Amino acid sequence: MSKGFLVSLEGPEGAGKTSVLEAILPLLEEKNIEFLTTREPGGVLIGEKIREVILDPSHTQMDPKTELLLYIASRRQHLVEKVLPALATGKLVIMDRFIDSSVAYQGFGRGLDIEAIDWLNQFATDGLKPDLTLYFDIEVEKGLERIAANSDREVNRLDLEGLDLHRKVRQGYLSLLEKEGERIVKIDASLPLNQVVENTKQVLFDRMGLTE
Amino acid sequence: MSKGFLVSLEGPEGAGKTSVLEAILPLLEEKNIEFLTTREPGGVLIGEKIREVILDPSHTQMDPKTELLLYIASRRQHLVEKVLPALATGKLVIMDRFIDSSVAYQGFGRGLDIEAIDWLNQFATDGLKPDLTLYFDIEVEKGLERIAANSDREVNRLDLEGLDLHRKVRQGYLSLLEKEGERIVKIDASLPLNQVVENTKQVLFDRMGLTE
Repeated sequence: MSKGFLVSLEGPEGAGKTSVLEAILPLLEEKNIEFLTTREPGGVLIGEKIREVILDPSHTQMDPKTELLLYIASRRQHLVEKVLPALATGKLVIMDRFIDSSVAYQGFGRGLDIEAIDWLNQFATDGLKPDLTLYFDIEVEKGLERIAANSDREVNRLDLEGLDLHRKVRQGYLSLLEKEGERIVKIDASLPLNQVVENTKQVLFDRMGLTE
Repeated sequence: MSKGFLVSLEGPEGAGKTSVLEAILPLLEEKNIEFLTTREPGGVLIGEKIREVILDPSHTQMDPKTELLLYIASRRQHLVEKVLPALATGKLVIMDRFIDSSVAYQGFGRGLDIEAIDWLNQFATDGLKPDLTLYFDIEVEKGLERIAANSDREVNRLDLEGLDLHRKVRQGYLSLLEKEGERIVKIDASLPLNQVVENTKQVLFDRMGLTE
């Protein structure tokens, strides 16, 4: 891999992305694959400062378009400072959420214009898309049950915003999958964890040209 | 004016926008025109916080696209929180710099893609453009001489970046003028101040339907 390989993990809360990733990393280490796992803003100073502006609870007047522009600005900076340099050295970069989350959450979920989000993503990334996106799909109700049952992880604001939002988000992901079925691979996240890990590993290794 | 009237002042540093504005405001008061003068981020909390991120001297890694996105985010928030409410109450709103500054400085000056800046401006403003833009035009050399001679105002970083940048910025404004000659009116800012004020007043009053 002289030019690196970019993977994004997508899906609703409760789909188990984090658990799967934790199980996959040792398998990559066994293969001596150099990787970077990250998630925006990912410790990038400017990105962190931007997130502080977004998340400051006193900012009750935040306009949805302002918020979107700030997320996109944070994305740009994270990409330039952290992702592109890692890819340039040939690393596998695994991002927990990326461009598709904006489409699913801000677009389908919140009702912001999807073409505008596409444009902004394209602007922020100079058109770079993941080589592979693993979409962890799960029925909305089942995902929320998992969150509630998982004592390691607190139920957050998004979890509580009701089924309606979560259904729209899932619809968003399924719509993206339909449009970009080459880049995005659906993983059935309702299966037992070891089976999800196995399926994820097979897709990832296959796309990276690795043998088992 | 039941729906307000939006005026933007544009032009390079040294063109004398501020002095002209100071001379015009008493004339508006005489006419009992309710007005708001402002400039991004204009005391809007979220906008101010965004500017802090842009201007923080420790942020040496700031990518030009990140910076542009942050300026546009600040523009959006200032518009929504301050400009639109004032226009809604029928006020004359006079903005010191607005959408055209981004095109002239970031686009023509810094070389960022002009179509992208247009798109971002449109996104941030929902397509709202000033009813009138007063472009104070001055030869680059003459503008810089004025700054140097003006003891009330320190020469800033932009001033010192050399003639080349300033020439590109002026070229940008002249190009905008050519494209949007209905909205943008060129004021010859090289004339003596009282003449510039008189010309500005005439254009403004004429466009607002005011008699002298």
